[in-house]
Amino acid sequence: VTRVHVWGASGYAAAEAVRLLEMHPALEVGVLESRSHAGSAVTEHFPDLRTLPYRFSDVGSVARAIRDGDVVIAAGAHGEAAAHVPQFLAQGARVVDLSADYRFDDNAVYGLTEWNREAVAGASLVANPGCYPTATLLALLPLLHLKRARQVIVDAKSGITGAGRKPTVGALYAEVARDIRAYGLEGHRHQPEIERVLAANDTLAPLVFTPHVVPLSRGMLVDAYAIYDAPTDDEAVRAAYVRAYAGSPFVRMLEPQMAPSVAAVVGTNDAEIRVDVIGTTVRVLCAIDNLGKGAAGQAIQNINVMLGLPEETGFDARAILA
Amino acid sequence: VTRVHVWGASGYAAAEAVRLLEMHPALEVGVLESRSHAGSAVTEHFPDLRTLPYRFSDVGSVARAIRDGDVVIAAGAHGEAAAHVPQFLAQGARVVDLSADYRFDDNAVYGLTEWNREAVAGASLVANPGCYPTATLLALLPLLHLKRARQVIVDAKSGITGAGRKPTVGALYAEVARDIRAYGLEGHRHQPEIERVLAANDTLAPLVFTPHVVPLSRGMLVDAYAIYDAPTDDEAVRAAYVRAYAGSPFVRMLEPQMAPSVAAVVGTNDAEIRVDVIGTTVRVLCAIDNLGKGAAGQAIQNINVMLGLPEETGFDARAILA
Amino acid sequence: VTRVHVWGASGYAAAEAVRLLEMHPALEVGVLESRSHAGSAVTEHFPDLRTLPYRFSDVGSVARAIRDGDVVIAAGAHGEAAAHVPQFLAQGARVVDLSADYRFDDNAVYGLTEWNREAVAGASLVANPGCYPTATLLALLPLLHLKRARQVIVDAKSGITGAGRKPTVGALYAEVARDIRAYGLEGHRHQPEIERVLAANDTLAPLVFTPHVVPLSRGMLVDAYAIYDAPTDDEAVRAAYVRAYAGSPFVRMLEPQMAPSVAAVVGTNDAEIRVDVIGTTVRVLCAIDNLGKGAAGQAIQNINVMLGLPEETGFDARAILA
Amino acid sequence: VTRVHVWGASGYAAAEAVRLLEMHPALEVGVLESRSHAGSAVTEHFPDLRTLPYRFSDVGSVARAIRDGDVVIAAGAHGEAAAHVPQFLAQGARVVDLSADYRFDDNAVYGLTEWNREAVAGASLVANPGCYPTATLLALLPLLHLKRARQVIVDAKSGITGAGRKPTVGALYAEVARDIRAYGLEGHRHQPEIERVLAANDTLAPLVFTPHVVPLSRGMLVDAYAIYDAPTDDEAVRAAYVRAYAGSPFVRMLEPQMAPSVAAVVGTNDAEIRVDVIGTTVRVLCAIDNLGKGAAGQAIQNINVMLGLPEETGFDARAILA
Repeated sequence: VTRVHVWGASGYAAAEAVRLLEMHPALEVGVLESRSHAGSAVTEHFPDLRTLPYRFSDVGSVARAIRDGDVVIAAGAHGEAAAHVPQFLAQGARVVDLSADYRFDDNAVYGLTEWNREAVAGASLVANPGCYPTATLLALLPLLHLKRARQVIVDAKSGITGAGRKPTVGALYAEVARDIRAYGLEGHRHQPEIERVLAANDTLAPLVFTPHVVPLSRGMLVDAYAIYDAPTDDEAVRAAYVRAYAGSPFVRMLEPQMAPSVAAVVGTNDAEIRVDVIGTTVRVLCAIDNLGKGAAGQAIQNINVMLGLPEETGFDARAILA
Repeated sequence: VTRVHVWGASGYAAAEAVRLLEMHPALEVGVLESRSHAGSAVTEHFPDLRTLPYRFSDVGSVARAIRDGDVVIAAGAHGEAAAHVPQFLAQGARVVDLSADYRFDDNAVYGLTEWNREAVAGASLVANPGCYPTATLLALLPLLHLKRARQVIVDAKSGITGAGRKPTVGALYAEVARDIRAYGLEGHRHQPEIERVLAANDTLAPLVFTPHVVPLSRGMLVDAYAIYDAPTDDEAVRAAYVRAYAGSPFVRMLEPQMAPSVAAVVGTNDAEIRVDVIGTTVRVLCAIDNLGKGAAGQAIQNINVMLGLPEETGFDARAILA
Repeated sequence: VTRVHVWGASGYAAAEAVRLLEMHPALEVGVLESRSHAGSAVTEHFPDLRTLPYRFSDVGSVARAIRDGDVVIAAGAHGEAAAHVPQFLAQGARVVDLSADYRFDDNAVYGLTEWNREAVAGASLVANPGCYPTATLLALLPLLHLKRARQVIVDAKSGITGAGRKPTVGALYAEVARDIRAYGLEGHRHQPEIERVLAANDTLAPLVFTPHVVPLSRGMLVDAYAIYDAPTDDEAVRAAYVRAYAGSPFVRMLEPQMAPSVAAVVGTNDAEIRVDVIGTTVRVLCAIDNLGKGAAGQAIQNINVMLGLPEETGFDARAILA
Repeated sequence: VTRVHVWGASGYAAAEAVRLLEMHPALEVGVLESRSHAGSAVTEHFPDLRTLPYRFSDVGSVARAIRDGDVVIAAGAHGEAAAHVPQFLAQGARVVDLSADYRFDDNAVYGLTEWNREAVAGASLVANPGCYPTATLLALLPLLHLKRARQVIVDAKSGITGAGRKPTVGALYAEVARDIRAYGLEGHRHQPEIERVLAANDTLAPLVFTPHVVPLSRGMLVDAYAIYDAPTDDEAVRAAYVRAYAGSPFVRMLEPQMAPSVAAVVGTNDAEIRVDVIGTTVRVLCAIDNLGKGAAGQAIQNINVMLGLPEETGFDARAILA
């Protein structure tokens, strides 16, 4: 059983990682380091983790605890991981970083598992993708590999936990419950991340990316539209997706009459995808759990791959009506 | 004071019409005909109308009550208005129909007020637009008049009251509260309505239309993307919108740093629009209240125009934090 | 037209006060002082107030602006009003304080309008009641005046805006949307306020008070249970309520088959009350809008009384389905 | 592995039973009989069960499928079970009925597991308690066994799935999302069920029971207040609860500073209880999942007991932030 420490453990993604680790047969929860929560019990902060006996530990505790072969999930704020991860690596730990700090760094492997399995398997440092890039790239890569687009439009809808657990006015119940909000209209941190991966895959196309917050705690739906000069062959498109995800247990290609559902993926590491060819446009819908496949789930999936375990190990829980 | 009867008065749009009529200085509530609710008090069915003294009356009551000069808002289900509206007209009433029954009928005036004021002013029968077409056309018509697009993508998000008050499993709290759902992916009733108006305005372009239900009772956000072969002049685009809506008190062109907000328009007849030119794409966001500008509000606005009243008469109420 | 300044104008109750002032024929918005928002436009912070032209002004602006005859609504945090209100009074303003600072101060008049009209009329300083005390006292005073109880249980449910707009983890969407939470179980600030008023009315009984947060932005339902040694006469109880609220336009005694509804009072200054005698218990349900009758609405109602205006002046808006 | 058939399988509790059976090591899903959904795939109706291969089967399919040793969960509407259960029993199946049909029948064992383990162990027919009685009785029985009360007040708050999946206006999103509603104020089906069990335990006291619907899909909080003539010993009360639930793995007595949380129990079979002695009143809060411990979870727990399995078998899943 491999120990997994969580550094920066006070947020929603960290809590989801703890929940998943608890159910995992080959991983166990190590140290949960949190500056803000140090010394208090997990149960005081996360009602859904009420039955767990863990406590948050103080600054430096992960570094003190690491033994060779341990894994660290770095779940701190953007900009903070880079100051600590090198030490964790130097101590012999493997690291999956949930922040954006290493997503543009060639020393890290970009952990979009379905498209980077081999590199992840040998990695000591994995930069876990953002939730928007995960859903967008899962939706677009099979298509753009088949045929580069003239223009790509990505209209994304996210639950509010994607904004983290730091309290802000914009994340208050009374603000989120009554609105749909487009944001980042002048440019969003995730757009360069998406474009970098598209470019690395030689599939770059002009991209318009519009993220929205909807009244959901968790879950994400991305509607991606690729516009072409001429109609695309429907069968070829479907075949490309089936081929791309044939060995990917978490990606579910939906039959034509079904629509991806956030309710179907919340609490899981699954992605649901539906593709439609409409004239010279191809529309791809992709639903994921922003805290699952978009964060903690994909981190555990990557750890499975890094440790040589079957990719789906530990993901027995199902979505739950809630 | 003109009497306004509501035929088919048991739904959400009818209730909103009653709320608006109550606040209107030149209109008064006439007969509220409802087959299902006949004989019961409005207050039993609509808590928000609790302080009103009205009762629902039985089948045929509108026809019996009409006097010359009255107005009828037909708020029945799609397919049912056509059997009753001719009689209302024959009795000398003017009619605004909220259903789809007359939206493709050349004997009716299409009541997208901002684009059809003169025809509405002289009309005896107005086909009130659907909520999706209202938001979409307000967003696109100034742009497409300026320059026809190669492709138009419309990604629309709606509160659930757009589906009406007939109980269905899909509209239950426990279904809506946990999901974002794209629907009508094989074709949606509103797409032909949008295309018909675009064609009539000589602005038709290939259209992909994707409606979604989000966890909101009311409110709608449409993200419309027009894709061109070459970049469009930013200033010219903005100028086209300013010109188009110069005399329209309910359309609010937002400054560049603001985003349309559903919370800002719920309970009003307002539309908020923001335009961005991004490479060869123009993105237009438009927020309306699906029960306001998307239904009952626009109906009252049309009645104001039909009666020669200032268009904004009776719309003093503001959005409310809720 | 009387000018009403708002001191501490960045919260939900202040925003609701601005909305109500805008609709009021005899009051107008004066200075909106906010330390945190000074210099910015109201519209940047409150989407529902989007169409208003006001800006927040800096610290000291209310004091600088006051002219004789002005009114100040003090909407700052508990503990801060007492440092500023004396100066406002000294400058000749009348003040309604929404905080708890003066609720236990004999120099202020306790502004539970229905039970204190005469004192409010002559007051220069009104301590506006809390939302929980307002609903609880409206529910209980007629009954306890009739017959003192052996024990009173108050089980109260509130929307989250009662906690203010200062961001805290507990008020985040993802925390509130999935829970019902009892809080203050060791003692809640509002219990002494309730007991003080009951004592002043010579109606004190042992009180157990349990507040809860439910997933609502605004609205409050109080279930009050008075336990007696012997059965109480049903008719006498009803008569006591009818008598108590005969001249109170905002209190609505419901007929036996109707239940108080939060949806019926949100956006209004109304209170809905239903009374049931069940064995030796009398159960009283009372619904109010925590930002309306529980805060800004009652403040405006008190200002009406202070200025000699009809109590219901300016309260034309109705609840809205949202 | 024992086969468990679900009769009347189209509702929320049935779907939750399927989810739990899937995770259970000693039980397997048998036939899912549904008149309304016969022939269609489970995945078409329940997005959270998307990955399951089951189909609903037609009327009579459970009766045709039963083999000796099978178990049937009867999840049909109240009033329908009694016509089918005798046959299931005659065929050699053991039955847990979720409806109210057998809760007043001496031939069935009342399945409040914690208070009836021995009888459940030997039962062939278990009447599963309602969600309100489950939470109320778990909260009150230890206390009332210790000391009978003068008066009991039960103020209960429930998510809307307790009303089932049959579409009604009252369960629509737009109705539930904006309100807290007390209902059944003239008498609720669950009150006699509670009183019958209290009487059977010789703990009956006058009861006022007020159920409410709050804007939650699932989850329930019961606030029970027992009023006495004299103060009760705090330590004795706590000891009574600890003693009562010492061998009950699903009941969690909370420490004094913690409050029961719906978020902590949704998706589980757990109950969280907190007790406070306040003067002559004892207040007991109890949170359960209305579909878990209040329905399907307790059914599986009862099946475990009936089959001689450890009570907690199959309940590994944790609450999930959603």
